Amino acid sequence: MKNIAFDRVKFAFDIERFFICMSQPLPFDLTSDTNPTNAMSLHDFSIVETTLREGEQFCKARFSSSDKVEIAKALDSFGVEYIELTSPRVSIYSRKDCHQIAELGLKSKVLTHIRCNLEDAKVAVDTGVDGINIVIGTSDLLRYFSHGKSIEEIIEIASKVLGFIRQANPRIELRFSTEDSFRSSLSDLLRVYLEIDRLGLVDRFGIADTVGIATPSQVFELVKILRQTTQKDIEFHGHNDTGCAIANSYTALEAGATHINTTVLGIGERNGITPLEGLVARLYVLNPEAIERKYALGSLGSICKLVADKVGVEIPFDRCIVGSASFSHKAGIHTKAVLKNSRTYEIIAPEDFGLERTMLIDHPLTGKYAISHRCHQLGLNLSPDKLVVATQKIKDLAYTRQISLEGIDRILVEFSQS
Amino acid sequence: MKNIAFDRVKFAFDIERFFICMSQPLPFDLTSDTNPTNAMSLHDFSIVETTLREGEQFCKARFSSSDKVEIAKALDSFGVEYIELTSPRVSIYSRKDCHQIAELGLKSKVLTHIRCNLEDAKVAVDTGVDGINIVIGTSDLLRYFSHGKSIEEIIEIASKVLGFIRQANPRIELRFSTEDSFRSSLSDLLRVYLEIDRLGLVDRFGIADTVGIATPSQVFELVKILRQTTQKDIEFHGHNDTGCAIANSYTALEAGATHINTTVLGIGERNGITPLEGLVARLYVLNPEAIERKYALGSLGSICKLVADKVGVEIPFDRCIVGSASFSHKAGIHTKAVLKNSRTYEIIAPEDFGLERTMLIDHPLTGKYAISHRCHQLGLNLSPDKLVVATQKIKDLAYTRQISLEGIDRILVEFSQS
Repeated sequence: MKNIAFDRVKFAFDIERFFICMSQPLPFDLTSDTNPTNAMSLHDFSIVETTLREGEQFCKARFSSSDKVEIAKALDSFGVEYIELTSPRVSIYSRKDCHQIAELGLKSKVLTHIRCNLEDAKVAVDTGVDGINIVIGTSDLLRYFSHGKSIEEIIEIASKVLGFIRQANPRIELRFSTEDSFRSSLSDLLRVYLEIDRLGLVDRFGIADTVGIATPSQVFELVKILRQTTQKDIEFHGHNDTGCAIANSYTALEAGATHINTTVLGIGERNGITPLEGLVARLYVLNPEAIERKYALGSLGSICKLVADKVGVEIPFDRCIVGSASFSHKAGIHTKAVLKNSRTYEIIAPEDFGLERTMLIDHPLTGKYAISHRCHQLGLNLSPDKLVVATQKIKDLAYTRQISLEGIDRILVEFSQS
Repeated sequence: MKNIAFDRVKFAFDIERFFICMSQPLPFDLTSDTNPTNAMSLHDFSIVETTLREGEQFCKARFSSSDKVEIAKALDSFGVEYIELTSPRVSIYSRKDCHQIAELGLKSKVLTHIRCNLEDAKVAVDTGVDGINIVIGTSDLLRYFSHGKSIEEIIEIASKVLGFIRQANPRIELRFSTEDSFRSSLSDLLRVYLEIDRLGLVDRFGIADTVGIATPSQVFELVKILRQTTQKDIEFHGHNDTGCAIANSYTALEAGATHINTTVLGIGERNGITPLEGLVARLYVLNPEAIERKYALGSLGSICKLVADKVGVEIPFDRCIVGSASFSHKAGIHTKAVLKNSRTYEIIAPEDFGLERTMLIDHPLTGKYAISHRCHQLGLNLSPDKLVVATQKIKDLAYTRQISLEGIDRILVEFSQS
């Protein structure tokens, strides 16, 4: 009894904490896969789509000017709020590309991404982009081996660069980000952000998990601190070296971030960053209607195909939503339930993305219900006993050799006539 | 002043929370990418590798008996603590496979995975496996559309099944898991787990994010509640429909989970579950030495290749560690720093996995430092001015056409002779 009583105390505490956690912007009613009645419960957020900057840093990417225009237009019609472009300082060609895409008159705001120095800034302000994203490394490793600047020097040069841009163009949208934020000391980070914040020059701050080391709880705490201490909008950029980019981006939004960096299929340096389709999947589950209002979900598949073709990769088989396997159901227990109600094993409706589900029956894990469904499609009527035997025959056959749907149909016809 | 003072109050609070968060088993020293001095700070954990169960439910998987033996042996030499097999109830063949793999004398414990019914249990106890993983759906959707049982009936049948197995084999390892745990009501879940716990028959409980809907904070809270209320070991099974499987598995460990389900490349129903290589990447970053002691990291690549070939898929280009892009460095700012110290942009050392990094210079984003490094490799000595011009020429050329390393070398030789 004592133990049970003790349990109950911890229990009440835990359940309270549980509901505190649940009352964060999450699908509250866990008994339904989505909650169509509640409004988008995450505060309003923006996608900063950087396939044309971070994505250009993908090992296999080599975008021509026309490729960039084609991708920018596709992202614009999908509805991303921002499109980020490679620094115009890289070459005369990327400068021309910035000019050209800034002049397309897209609904998406056009940004370019530069290092924190005056030369980059001078070229960037002349490109006609809507905003400039500035980044500088603050971790010991990057300060020592990359730009060699002290925290004092970082604050000094950032102040100069931001001041110059703001003076050159008062209306331009300015983001200042540290690089490798999660390997920077908290005191260095806060010193830099708070000093820059006092200048009143930037529209938002960036936090970058440049090496993909951050965990969701670390992202939550850092975003929360920065949001509370500056009240500025916060942009999160997360690499995927340890496979946490989507969860970290979502957690950043929970903590108060307002802007998330994505690339189509997640392409970028090394194994890339938060994939556009992955962030969309994560947020769609929270509130499908809100995401459908924000983005043209039906074109997500074609955008992924477009970029996959441009960089010469296959869309990974298991990619969220757009992977070839994402809506396939195989084991008997799964197909049975999905045939009755697709929500049993699907939290994303393929039809919302112009896609279809696949029900596999030509394998040893198939089940009676899926086979009887096939009989129904064929207009065959098998007795319960025959159905059991036919199903077992198909399972056993499929184990020993590849079996086609036609082969299965022949077996079912034979059973119906026997 | 008031505002600043107010900030400082929030500040102290936040920094305290920040460090509370950091003092969770995480790489504490954020100024270094890993902390080789501290011991593995996560409590001891086990990988329950289910490529031969969940992985067999992948749409393209069709494993023969010899495939299964080959994969089981590879996973055993890698060092996974458990290997889970498809239910022997599926067919005479999977029954034979359970027998055969249980008799291989592997270091890994061999489990099979069954539905919560006596017929499955009777067949399973006769296979000679070390343990049985039992699962039953508890969400309204699965209870209504899958097995049609009430919570009372679930508890009743689970008690019967667990009692039968324990009586048939007192030494067998028993796991009881709910299915679709994150769409089940908390009261239903706790009722089921606590009733089963009172029987004192199971070795651990399972929590399953069957549809890939859970967020890290939800996983943390549910695992923590179950751990605190039962003090049992906890196994987490996470699907990847919204791309959070790796982060959710890691967060489950933070919350006290002891066993994590993985499959090689994450293959499973729909787009699968936590990939073995992804979980390894996430945990390696926390403490490389501890993970190297636990697993044969050098064979991770070949295991992924083995399974990719068996199921006829390409290893996705951006897969953690084993993806073709995972150790490629492209932008000039990255290659410069990596050439000085690879830890600047690498938190995973490719050599620990028998892999190599790639430094790309044949593209418009290349930089002076990478080009001068190439000159050094070629034994060429370019003046600083020539180096700047040569680099810009290579960048511009690479923008307009595909350029080979040989082409770059020719350009550098010309500059050195001009």
